[in-house]
Amino acid sequence: MGRCGRSSTASCRSTTSPTPTPRCRREVCSASSCCACDERAGQREPGDCCGSAASAGRSRSDLVSLQFVKLGGSLITDKTGEQSLERATLDRLAAEVAAAQTASPTALVVGHGSGSFGHVAAARTALRAAGAASPDRPIDRPSATEVSEVQAAAHRLHAEVLKALRAAGVAAMSLPPSSWLTLQDGKVANAGCGAVAQALELGLVPVVCGDVVLDSVRGAVICSTEEVFSVLVRGGGLAGRFTRALWMGRTDGLLVAGKRLDRIDETNVESALAEAGGALGVDVTGGMRHRVETLWSLAGEVGESWILDGGRPGVLEAALGGRRLGGTCVGRAEPALGRPQAGPPPPFMSS
Amino acid sequence: MGRCGRSSTASCRSTTSPTPTPRCRREVCSASSCCACDERAGQREPGDCCGSAASAGRSRSDLVSLQFVKLGGSLITDKTGEQSLERATLDRLAAEVAAAQTASPTALVVGHGSGSFGHVAAARTALRAAGAASPDRPIDRPSATEVSEVQAAAHRLHAEVLKALRAAGVAAMSLPPSSWLTLQDGKVANAGCGAVAQALELGLVPVVCGDVVLDSVRGAVICSTEEVFSVLVRGGGLAGRFTRALWMGRTDGLLVAGKRLDRIDETNVESALAEAGGALGVDVTGGMRHRVETLWSLAGEVGESWILDGGRPGVLEAALGGRRLGGTCVGRAEPALGRPQAGPPPPFMSS
Repeated sequence: MGRCGRSSTASCRSTTSPTPTPRCRREVCSASSCCACDERAGQREPGDCCGSAASAGRSRSDLVSLQFVKLGGSLITDKTGEQSLERATLDRLAAEVAAAQTASPTALVVGHGSGSFGHVAAARTALRAAGAASPDRPIDRPSATEVSEVQAAAHRLHAEVLKALRAAGVAAMSLPPSSWLTLQDGKVANAGCGAVAQALELGLVPVVCGDVVLDSVRGAVICSTEEVFSVLVRGGGLAGRFTRALWMGRTDGLLVAGKRLDRIDETNVESALAEAGGALGVDVTGGMRHRVETLWSLAGEVGESWILDGGRPGVLEAALGGRRLGGTCVGRAEPALGRPQAGPPPPFMSS
Repeated sequence: MGRCGRSSTASCRSTTSPTPTPRCRREVCSASSCCACDERAGQREPGDCCGSAASAGRSRSDLVSLQFVKLGGSLITDKTGEQSLERATLDRLAAEVAAAQTASPTALVVGHGSGSFGHVAAARTALRAAGAASPDRPIDRPSATEVSEVQAAAHRLHAEVLKALRAAGVAAMSLPPSSWLTLQDGKVANAGCGAVAQALELGLVPVVCGDVVLDSVRGAVICSTEEVFSVLVRGGGLAGRFTRALWMGRTDGLLVAGKRLDRIDETNVESALAEAGGALGVDVTGGMRHRVETLWSLAGEVGESWILDGGRPGVLEAALGGRRLGGTCVGRAEPALGRPQAGPPPPFMSS
């Protein structure tokens, strides 16, 4: 029996059983530190979780425990410039992913924003966010040249992310959503998540990104990484399998009046959304508010989402090992035993 | 009435009707020069076809007439080296595509081989061609790192092709098959051709390539551009719509004892296949024989396939306008009126 001795909850993923389930249903939590009981161990910060022990000994193709990392566009690019890569930061984050995978291999999908590559290019065109409300009047469809140019800009950054991950020793596989996702008036028409699931099965780290996605009504739209993650969370083969999503940005979680919010749950989600602002620099998809909205809407389907400071060395590596250093945790405070109730669908997915 | 006055055949696509059908069914051919009757006009070479007039005035999103161009790996790279780009050739071919699209816009998909990028990388790994017979004994599945590295090499060339096309003014869209195609023991498991069809609808030029494709039995395999084309020809939304496929290589068609074969049809396909050799340099998918086999197997579903000399300036631009300069035409000599009988399925697609 572990320290806390309390009954485990659905948010606890600590288990040493050979066939772990997405949600630990053992009656007694054996973790040395658990989100649900908030007990601290050593120098850990509030909210440290128990995934580290859980991931030890897992094969990479163990899809039962699946993590998602977003490398924010504001983190890996200078969003106040144009096509300006923060190479040192990107290389460090790639090295942290590699170190975490070496120490404790887990099934992992990496996503990244488009930063000063795709967003700046898109802002000059008729391309709009997938989640934008469909206007009443006929819309200006983007031209073929606009779609081509914005995809080129977004994929230039995608290639840099892949290069950095591979150079660090991560078996990354490029799976840009423009190739496997199509929409109809901003809603998912067809999502071919099969390649993502099969890549994980083979031990690869699929890399997705905010991208231009074709839309049978609007021509094409910009899909944010958050929207792509929503599709993966609910898509074939991966639905319900994400146990943790790590959103690496330039701030230490959601800051309210300069102070970090440790947790967003039922008790404070409304005020948190009211406080969450837009993005630094040019961003056609919406910044922090869009992120919090999406993560909250997925709270019933993803174990936990952590909004973390990717600018602070070591935070990503620790988080991938299950140790949270600062940041804001988005999740339900008292999830029901077993599978939590699903939240409302994210704006992007709703009809 | 045109020169020849013969009854038109299914291979004739000359029509000035406002709503052309994939196969011209008019009783009398009105083309000034027609493959079926081999009549020459001016300085044209044998086999000149009648697509040029047909394509005039079409919008790019006219999916009824759809062309495919493969830029051969042997043409745009030096296959005796490693990751050695033939940049001048690639830029010239991209300019020819752009010029043809400006003169007479048609719906077009561009594919390219992997040349000394993907093939050389793949030859060092356990990755094998999708079309390779499934061995009786358990196979060595490629490692995640091998898949990642071979995809990286193939996509490095893909990025160069996209860059060249965009620089020439072509609204190219990257749609690599590794993202939208999955296999099961070398056979198609899921083909998400939707993005390719939607890109065409928007006037984009989708760019596909020979690529690493995930396979639920073999882990991952190499899909040649020919195999990807087979999937597109028979895939959702595009089935039966390809009127012409242009295979640009380094030879003036299929050479038999140093002499060009003008046409491959029922009368000589067996001997042509016996004469068709492998590829120059490293090629894990099979070279000319693989190409002729695939094109012949698709002869009932693609208007015509031309194997042309991409090293000769002007050949691609002329072909996109419907004028064939040399090369070998693969197609049925006397197709039935209306839709020709389908050939046997290509090795890749058969079960």
